[in-house]
Amino acid sequence: MPKVRKSAEIPAKDRLLLSGALLFGQKGFEGVSVREICKHANTSMNMIHHYFESKDGLLQSIVEQFSDQVFVVPLKLLQKPPKSKEDFHSRMEMLFEATLDAYIDQRDLLMVIIREQADPEALTEYVNKFAAFLDSAKKSGYVRKEIDSSMITGIMLDRILNQVQFAPWIKRKHGVDLLTDDAYRQRWCESNLEVFLNGMVA
Amino acid sequence: MPKVRKSAEIPAKDRLLLSGALLFGQKGFEGVSVREICKHANTSMNMIHHYFESKDGLLQSIVEQFSDQVFVVPLKLLQKPPKSKEDFHSRMEMLFEATLDAYIDQRDLLMVIIREQADPEALTEYVNKFAAFLDSAKKSGYVRKEIDSSMITGIMLDRILNQVQFAPWIKRKHGVDLLTDDAYRQRWCESNLEVFLNGMVA
Repeated sequence: MPKVRKSAEIPAKDRLLLSGALLFGQKGFEGVSVREICKHANTSMNMIHHYFESKDGLLQSIVEQFSDQVFVVPLKLLQKPPKSKEDFHSRMEMLFEATLDAYIDQRDLLMVIIREQADPEALTEYVNKFAAFLDSAKKSGYVRKEIDSSMITGIMLDRILNQVQFAPWIKRKHGVDLLTDDAYRQRWCESNLEVFLNGMVA
Repeated sequence: MPKVRKSAEIPAKDRLLLSGALLFGQKGFEGVSVREICKHANTSMNMIHHYFESKDGLLQSIVEQFSDQVFVVPLKLLQKPPKSKEDFHSRMEMLFEATLDAYIDQRDLLMVIIREQADPEALTEYVNKFAAFLDSAKKSGYVRKEIDSSMITGIMLDRILNQVQFAPWIKRKHGVDLLTDDAYRQRWCESNLEVFLNGMVA
């Protein structure tokens, strides 16, 4: 496993966060020792204690990092209710892509969240704001009245989460790579949104 | 952690499969020792070697078990192309529920498949038959021509997979339990299918 290089540019604390996210994501919290993380991060043994008090503290900080970083762009797209049907559609498109991009960028952190079934605050905020956005689209008549907004947020997030989680598996099996192939990513987003927006029934 | 009871009814080999699925699912393949599995299964130390040759062999058998057990009912529903629009709708309903039920029944096995990103044969067969079923529904005019069948199978399986995978987390956070609450499970299936079939747009 490639180590995080000891460098003047990345401080020891950040190296520990990077190594922790990678190793927790791969092996689970229980499966990794403090010693292993320090070795991978190229720091001396007592550094986790120094910066995070304990392995638990390191996990905590990784979950907080997820909260700080992942939903910045998606949350901006949800700030105001949709102004028109066209605005609603284009914001749904942007939101789907921005969430996918955020999950791809922070895949190591995401894998830890999944493994530990953590509950980052920012995810709750995102889901709530997304549902509120859909509710106001419903009031304006852009979304059908029968639709349960929380179903839409759930379906979209499950789809994105799994595609990013299983990207290496999908690449091995189907030869397509969402993480690196922009054209495929674009098509994938459009195809999914087409189903969420208009359904499959003729 | 509750051990598998040593009993005349469950043979040692099956106890090892049960314990292996549970422990691999919780801690990952790397995170569990042969010793731990034997202890949990209440067998003597050399039994994994005796029945499965190695820890790898045990994992292999667990993945095969998944193939044998999980998709029996869903595959039956996909055997013939839909006869009418009504038949298509009711088979989609039954298929969604049957797949959810199968994943719930075999949740321990499923968690191993997810953790190890294994590739059970039966999953491939299921996805291919499901896509073929949708393609014939498309030919008959029940599904829109623009729809990519593999998107539908992916969206439905991702949704079901995550709901079962994160069921304990969802219960903690939202107080609803898909694994035990039949009425909620019923509503959940209907709400999701409503989106997949008809989309959200007014």
